[in-house]
Amino acid sequence: MTEKDFLKVTTLKVVLKLIFALPSVGEEVLASDQSVGRILARDVFSGIDLPEFSRATMDGYAVQARSTFGASESMPALFTIVGSVEMGEIPTVSVEPGQAVRIATGGMLPQGADSVVMVEHTQALDEHTLEVFKSGAPLQHVMEAGEDFKKGEKVLARGSPIRPQEMGVLAALGQTRVEVYRQPVVAIISSGDEIVPIEQTPGLSQLRDVNAHTLAGLVPLSGGIPRYLGIAKDNFDDLDRLCRQALAEADMVLISGGSSVGSRDFTLEVLQGLPDSEILVHGVSVSPGKPTILARCGKKAVWGIPGQVTSAMVVFHVMVRPSIQRICGLCEDELGKINEVPAVLSRNLASVQGREDYVRIRLLRRGGGLCAEPILGKSGLIHTMVKADGLIRIDRDSEGLEEGAEVKVMLF
Amino acid sequence: MTEKDFLKVTTLKVVLKLIFALPSVGEEVLASDQSVGRILARDVFSGIDLPEFSRATMDGYAVQARSTFGASESMPALFTIVGSVEMGEIPTVSVEPGQAVRIATGGMLPQGADSVVMVEHTQALDEHTLEVFKSGAPLQHVMEAGEDFKKGEKVLARGSPIRPQEMGVLAALGQTRVEVYRQPVVAIISSGDEIVPIEQTPGLSQLRDVNAHTLAGLVPLSGGIPRYLGIAKDNFDDLDRLCRQALAEADMVLISGGSSVGSRDFTLEVLQGLPDSEILVHGVSVSPGKPTILARCGKKAVWGIPGQVTSAMVVFHVMVRPSIQRICGLCEDELGKINEVPAVLSRNLASVQGREDYVRIRLLRRGGGLCAEPILGKSGLIHTMVKADGLIRIDRDSEGLEEGAEVKVMLF
Repeated sequence: MTEKDFLKVTTLKVVLKLIFALPSVGEEVLASDQSVGRILARDVFSGIDLPEFSRATMDGYAVQARSTFGASESMPALFTIVGSVEMGEIPTVSVEPGQAVRIATGGMLPQGADSVVMVEHTQALDEHTLEVFKSGAPLQHVMEAGEDFKKGEKVLARGSPIRPQEMGVLAALGQTRVEVYRQPVVAIISSGDEIVPIEQTPGLSQLRDVNAHTLAGLVPLSGGIPRYLGIAKDNFDDLDRLCRQALAEADMVLISGGSSVGSRDFTLEVLQGLPDSEILVHGVSVSPGKPTILARCGKKAVWGIPGQVTSAMVVFHVMVRPSIQRICGLCEDELGKINEVPAVLSRNLASVQGREDYVRIRLLRRGGGLCAEPILGKSGLIHTMVKADGLIRIDRDSEGLEEGAEVKVMLF
Repeated sequence: MTEKDFLKVTTLKVVLKLIFALPSVGEEVLASDQSVGRILARDVFSGIDLPEFSRATMDGYAVQARSTFGASESMPALFTIVGSVEMGEIPTVSVEPGQAVRIATGGMLPQGADSVVMVEHTQALDEHTLEVFKSGAPLQHVMEAGEDFKKGEKVLARGSPIRPQEMGVLAALGQTRVEVYRQPVVAIISSGDEIVPIEQTPGLSQLRDVNAHTLAGLVPLSGGIPRYLGIAKDNFDDLDRLCRQALAEADMVLISGGSSVGSRDFTLEVLQGLPDSEILVHGVSVSPGKPTILARCGKKAVWGIPGQVTSAMVVFHVMVRPSIQRICGLCEDELGKINEVPAVLSRNLASVQGREDYVRIRLLRRGGGLCAEPILGKSGLIHTMVKADGLIRIDRDSEGLEEGAEVKVMLF
């Protein structure tokens, strides 16, 4: 394809803008302990002070800090031990100046105490007498009521992913259920007379349906649920039927194959015939991946993805993945989250101006850093993807990169 | 805890060595299209040449390259069009010198042809006559039979994770099923008289069982299946009973809580009483996370994890996660895989020599790079983990790090 061709097509930046206009799928309510990786559909506010009581964060003695002022190894402060607090117990004693109450990590601070002296800085002379060897400060080794979250405070934001720590917050607030965005169903259609199901031995000139399987792996990693609808033969009716089924059952449609001139036109024809459809993109200025199609049918995105396996994967990583994340409700901040590592390029790489080139990279440790070794090879060769750890982008206005250049590797 | 205490305890390096000695769980057979994220239990060899036939990688004309030698815009080479190859069709024509056969991307190369001329570099004068404007080379725009994988070649290695591209390889080879390591079941036990289930409103001095929920989120992200067994009260029989149940049902056991001096001894006592048990580690020179216990019961690891929520998460990230990955069968190379990003520290950070300090970090974009902003706060405060994107390590022999230092952030 020539440079001129690329001037007619859409830039990735414009494609990403179109993606951000897609509406998110609906919401559902889920058990909190099953919610890891899902996206919050509502802000979460704390209904309580967390913790609800002031607690010791060390094993030791609850005291009034001022009673320890000036204490040292050579000049210990003397305390009277007036009781102890067991874990999970409400203290029955209170602490006056010069008094100490034995307390374990997590124990509830007794009335009057404002500080905990670590057991390592004390020596009990007998059952009732304690030496303290270190001067403490108010709130030392104490977690105050409301120090983690105050009642009414917004603690988690809509559009952010639920990680294990967010699950912990929900648990701390007693939220056994959580409102999240539904996982979008992403229909996968393969197209082409030459494509056969993988369990079939391909005849001479036929190919197994590899893309359906790479896409079935990529979709869940982006937050979607893959639904494979099968292989459409190269005729209008077959692809039209599967597309209509996909739009009825799924939130997004991926059609792979049909990237040759003839079948591309053919896919376009089917897409244009779908109800309330609009071709948004026909060709993107990235390589590999130029013959990508993006259509809107109603409020759903339908992608036409190249048939070559590595082209299909690159297109998925740079365009389809953010579109799935977008309809999953992920906020824009998180969409741009860091999944890149810097590395030093191992060799010169040429590129064509006017398009973004994506090059497969294997990462090698070299010295304290990482070396990015380009994996070259035709875009139909899947072994190049197996060897690769990620991709680098060469910008549209660049003629290439030199050996030793600092690059950012988008990890798979 | 004093510096002296840390000298009695185990270093992380030794803990990781102990982890690598754990045996992996058994194998199972899975549908290939459900295998993303799983670990291969066997090497995979190709039973076929891939592709099985030589194919065009561009739309154009199949020719003998030598017939194009010397062709240019001003001096086109003339060809006779002798037929065409449809996708999925076995060519019925063969190509002699000076002859061309129309072919689409993915089409099977006809006998005699060794090269494809892109359609953009040609002009058909009539149905039978073609001008070619560019000199081609043998194998140009052709993917040869066996170029991706040769029959008998090892294509995927035992112990490596199945990513979407590995699923693609399995599909290309017609492998609908794949042998993977079973996902280990990881039992989660919480302990402590003060801990109540999250659906319960904690009485004054009680706490909801937060750790069970953060661990239920962390375990699947490491490849395991969490199984929550409930809360053990602070008595020997209760914890002993749950531990025996856990060892019967699970491949690994996590006991959180019991990190205070009294309950720590108590947990030790239970672990020592289990059949064929050995305490491997009692205290690790990391902070937070010092009071960690690792025992071996039969061939299974039992972890005692601190009760403080952030300590528990740090211990999980630096020790428990690699131990789960190890018994999942992940090879050592992959265990050390890059999940770190470099950043510049935003402020000075003090540390105690003789232990590894783990500091929670928020990443901010600054200029072209990343700024690592430490999140300070008590290890019981879960909001510090919600704000954090990852952890940095301060080495045992360091007294701290200075503002502007280059750090590596382990991403959550």
